[in-house]
Order: sequence, then C-alpha cells, then structure tokens
Amino acid sequence: MSRLEENIRKVTPYVPGEQPQNKVIKLNTNENPYPPSPEVDRVLGEVDSGDFRLYPDPSCSILVKALADCYGVGEDQIFVGVGSDDVLAMCFLTFFNSGKPILFPDITYSFYKVWAQLYSIPYECPKLNEEFRIVKEDYYRENGGVIFPNPNAPTAVYEELDFIEDILEHNRDVVVIVDEAYIDFAGRSAIELIERYDNLVVTQTFSKARSMAGMRIGYAISNPKLIRYLNDVKYSFNSYTLNKVALVCGEAAVKDQEYFENTVKKITDTREKTKKELADLGFSFTDSKANFIFASHPEYDAKEMFDAMKEQGIYVRHWDSERISQYLRITIGTEEEMQKLFEFLKKYMQK
Amino acid sequence: MSRLEENIRKVTPYVPGEQPQNKVIKLNTNENPYPPSPEVDRVLGEVDSGDFRLYPDPSCSILVKALADCYGVGEDQIFVGVGSDDVLAMCFLTFFNSGKPILFPDITYSFYKVWAQLYSIPYECPKLNEEFRIVKEDYYRENGGVIFPNPNAPTAVYEELDFIEDILEHNRDVVVIVDEAYIDFAGRSAIELIERYDNLVVTQTFSKARSMAGMRIGYAISNPKLIRYLNDVKYSFNSYTLNKVALVCGEAAVKDQEYFENTVKKITDTREKTKKELADLGFSFTDSKANFIFASHPEYDAKEMFDAMKEQGIYVRHWDSERISQYLRITIGTEEEMQKLFEFLKKYMQK
Repeated sequence: MSRLEENIRKVTPYVPGEQPQNKVIKLNTNENPYPPSPEVDRVLGEVDSGDFRLYPDPSCSILVKALADCYGVGEDQIFVGVGSDDVLAMCFLTFFNSGKPILFPDITYSFYKVWAQLYSIPYECPKLNEEFRIVKEDYYRENGGVIFPNPNAPTAVYEELDFIEDILEHNRDVVVIVDEAYIDFAGRSAIELIERYDNLVVTQTFSKARSMAGMRIGYAISNPKLIRYLNDVKYSFNSYTLNKVALVCGEAAVKDQEYFENTVKKITDTREKTKKELADLGFSFTDSKANFIFASHPEYDAKEMFDAMKEQGIYVRHWDSERISQYLRITIGTEEEMQKLFEFLKKYMQK
Repeated sequence: MSRLEENIRKVTPYVPGEQPQNKVIKLNTNENPYPPSPEVDRVLGEVDSGDFRLYPDPSCSILVKALADCYGVGEDQIFVGVGSDDVLAMCFLTFFNSGKPILFPDITYSFYKVWAQLYSIPYECPKLNEEFRIVKEDYYRENGGVIFPNPNAPTAVYEELDFIEDILEHNRDVVVIVDEAYIDFAGRSAIELIERYDNLVVTQTFSKARSMAGMRIGYAISNPKLIRYLNDVKYSFNSYTLNKVALVCGEAAVKDQEYFENTVKKITDTREKTKKELADLGFSFTDSKANFIFASHPEYDAKEMFDAMKEQGIYVRHWDSERISQYLRITIGTEEEMQKLFEFLKKYMQK
C-alpha cells in the first residue's frame, strides 16, 4: 500500500460547523432562522419527478436570467455553482494561477487557506488591525490575487465601497474577489464597481439572506470575459451542477424581492436588539453588519461559555485560534431564540 | 487586461451533448426513457421547503447508508458527489498525483482528457484494437494511474471481471478507477473485487439506470482508506454538495430495487430488439452491453445520417473524431421512440 499512497493528494480539510440533528437552538452556522419565500414552496410543489430522468440545463439559464434581472447586469456576467463554496473553489482554480502568493486577511473565512493548499497556491495573510479591520495598505504589494469577504467573517466588519475601490485600484493586474456572502445584511454591494474594474469578481450566496443553505446555490458576478474563463473551468470539471429542483427554487426565491427584503429587515432588527442586550451583559463586539455577532466578554472565558451553552442545547461557534480564542460567533436567530440565549447568559453570569 | 490574463487558467472544456428544449426524440445523452421510481415522487411530495434554510447533512448519511445496504459494503466505503462527473473530478484530483502519465483508452469518455488537462496530469491513451476492445497488455507499463469505463463509452463494450482483475493485478502501486456508469445494463460489477484489490475504485451514477440525470448524484465505492482520502479532498473543496432534495430522492430510488430491475429489463429488452432491427438495415455495431448502441453503416455517411435525423427531430450523438467519425451513438429509448427511429432509417435508405 505504501507506494500506492505516494501518489495520493493529502490535505487537511475544512471543518464545517456542527450540524446537530436534534431540537436545539442553532446559532452556529449563520443560517437564516426564517423559511425561504412561499414562492419556493409553490414551485417545489409543481416539480414533476418524471423530468428527473433528463439532464438539467447545463447553463442554468432560468436562474442566471433571474439573477441578471435582479442585479441589472447581463446574463453573460453571472456564473452559478453548488453554493458559494463551489463558486469560490472554481475562482481559486481559475484566477489564482500565477505562482505568486495570493493575499487574504489572517482572520477570515477559513476555507480560503484550505483551497490554496488544495491547489498548491502560495498565500500570505496580512493581519487585521486591533479593531479587526483590514489594513488596505497591506494589499498594495505584488501578489497573485486578492480575496476577502465584505462583511468579513467571523468579524462581521463591513468596509465601504471607497475602501474596496482603493484595493481594486492598487491591484489592477490581478483578480480581486470580494466574497459578499453577508452583504444583504450590510450595505452597498461592490457589484456597482464591476463596470469600472475589469479585475473584480463579486461572489454571493443563497445560503444566508435567501434562506436556502439546504439548496446549495451560489453565484459570481463579474465582466463577461472573467465569467467566460470561469465557465470554461466549470465545464472542464462538471457540466451539470445544479439539479432541476435547485434551478426552479432558486429562480422563485430571487423573484420574490419583497419577501427577501422583509426577511433581511427582521434579521437586522433582531441583530440591533441583540447588540443592546449583549452590551448590557458586558460583552464587547465589533459593529456587526452581518447576520451574526462576534463577541467576547472581559470576565468570562469564551470556550467555557461555549461548552456551557452547548450543554443547554444552544449552539454557537468558537475557534481555538490565535487572536480570536476569546470570541464567540453568534448567529442571529428568531427573537425567541435570542431571548433564550439572553436568559441562559443571565443565569450563567449569576453563577 | 493582458497582465491580468496571464494568471488565469485557460482550458478547453468538455462539450456536453445538446439539450434541445423542444419536443424531440432524444437519443443523444444516454438518459433513461422511463421516469424514476414512484417512491421518488412520493418523497419529493413530502419535502418541506422550510428545511431549506438549514445546511444539508455534509456526510450525506441517509444516501450513503442506502447505497451501503444496497451493495453490501460498509458506509465508510461509499463516497457521493454531484453526479459521477463530480466524483470522477475528485478522484483525478485525489489519486492521480504522481506526475507520471495516467492511462486511459484512446476511444473513451471524453471528459478524462479534460480533467487531466485541468489538473495538469500527464496522460497516455493506448489504442483500442480493431474491434474497439481494450488491449490489457497496454496497461502493464509504468504509469500514474488507470481509468476506463466498463462498459466502455461510446463503444458499449463490456469486459468480464477476469479482464478487470488482470489490469488490477498489473497495477498494484497505482489507483485503478473502473467507471461503471453503464454497468447495470451489462453484467457483474467490479465492486466484488474491492476486498481483494486495495487499489480499486469503482464509480457509478444515478443518471442512467436509476433515471435521475436531472438530480445529479454519483458515487464511488472502494476500501475505507481510499474513501477517506477522497472525502478529505471533497471537504477541502465544498463541504455541502448534495442538497436536501437530492438526498431524500436518491435514498428513495436506491431502496426501490424492484422498480430499478424492471426498468433495466425493459431497456435491455428494447436494446436487443434494436440490435436486430439495425442489423436488418445493414448496420454493424459492437455487442452493446450498455443503454446505447455504437453503430455504423457501410453505405451511409454517419454525419449525413446524423444531420438528416436531427432535421426530423431525432437526436443521436456523433463525433467528428479519428476512428469513430463513421459511427453514431444511439441511446435506447422507449419502444415507440425506437420505432420512429427505424421508420426514419427505412425511409432514409430508400431515397
């Protein structure tokens, strides 16, 4: 077996948040506490399983068209995949091919490092400053590409578009990917910069604001040229990715803009209330613009709180990593779920 | 833009068969002419769209368990992905990592070459013999891995297990992938060899015999060690691949063994009748053990027949490639669809 093993690629995979199957308060993987649009349910009821015998549309055209209409871009500016992880994995493979180190923050979505390792892409990780903000001057040096989330995760910090533009301006020769998984809870999207910066790729997901993590849909928006390169790689990997149900449910979700906006508003309202409650309890945290809060407490150890919560069926996320081991990432749930969290914390702190 | 482009991976993608959206006789992408099991329809009706807000089970355990039970192997011997193309793409990335050329036949599934190019894996393509059969001695030389379909595509030729064993025996130091997309129409699967050969990976799909091309489900069966390496790479690429609907529909399809067997029998019965009809019309073809026939006619040009059929709304597959440009690959449809094909051919040949 040993010679056989020599030829095998060995990697340290990404570890996703726990997916407990029992009745728990699940505030650990930034899912949406509300169901998707009723339109999704309606089209799901109309799906004919007899159609499953045929391959789905490889160009995913109904979904691409709905997204193009929604964002006011051309259909040739949209790439879709099996969640934004699939889209980002394709972006790494397509765009980060120079041999020079790519740049992303030291504290950020931990999958970036995993993809870089998988594809043997060198990388460097400039440190966030003390306030957990990206230092844009760190991205002025020569590199093989740049990627960062906006808002960043798990820090929840959002940067305005002039900040994004500055990084784009200083990196005209490489692709800059702005991972906007949480943008709908935050502010203006970098999509409006695509016309002016031919090096910009914006990625988004159906897993957060659109309540469809279980459906696995993500997308990239860029200029037609970069989208074409991305599609060429996709068609060199798997021609048929999104199944028929994902296509029709995805289309229905995008078209129901009103439901989407209402859901986002409910979550951001709960987030702002949660900030107040957590502040009253003595927590400190960044000014979250995402559907989660990244909080620490000066008097209580984060890992101990995490374990105590878990014992009570309240799941949040904790990393035993440099600089952030005293923080908890708490997803915004329903008002009721957050009340239970506060009740727990009040009791815990009285002990 | 030119310096920007230097860093981009440029590939020649796989070209999938056409997916015409109109009412046609579609015998071009080896889909199943019958719908999936009624059990699939039943569980589809029970899906709650409210669950879409949560991530699906990353280990796909209900589907893995159903497959393990079906094939009498351990759950740790099954890897699932978004169609067997996704599974094979992961296998190439994981197992063909030696730098030595991998081997696959000159006439075979055209995606193998595309994946090799995508990942910069060197490859050599030993020629099928005059009867379109693999010459096993060609696979005795040093290599970085072996892959071939059984039955092969588009030739439809099936090799018995002693043939497979011989190739496994001569390649103990590399991974040998037997791509069994069409095995259910053919004969014994190499799955029974897994216990004896620690270098064997067998891949299969839901797209053919299980009538679920539109759902995108494929799987690999091997020993627990190789499956673990494959899962490590998958979790370094995309943790959540199959969506909730695919998981429950896939499970339901696997469990309905009787429907599966009946469907396969209908197709192989039609295939044998089709062989007689095509022989009567003067076609020659390999002894197909798949759900398609690879046929040529001594008096009629394949490309001209292909174009004439397409004009009448009958889609088959033709490649303008060396050695096979005089062949058509004809998927086995329903009895009625095949009748229409024969009617067309009879008319065409009277002209």
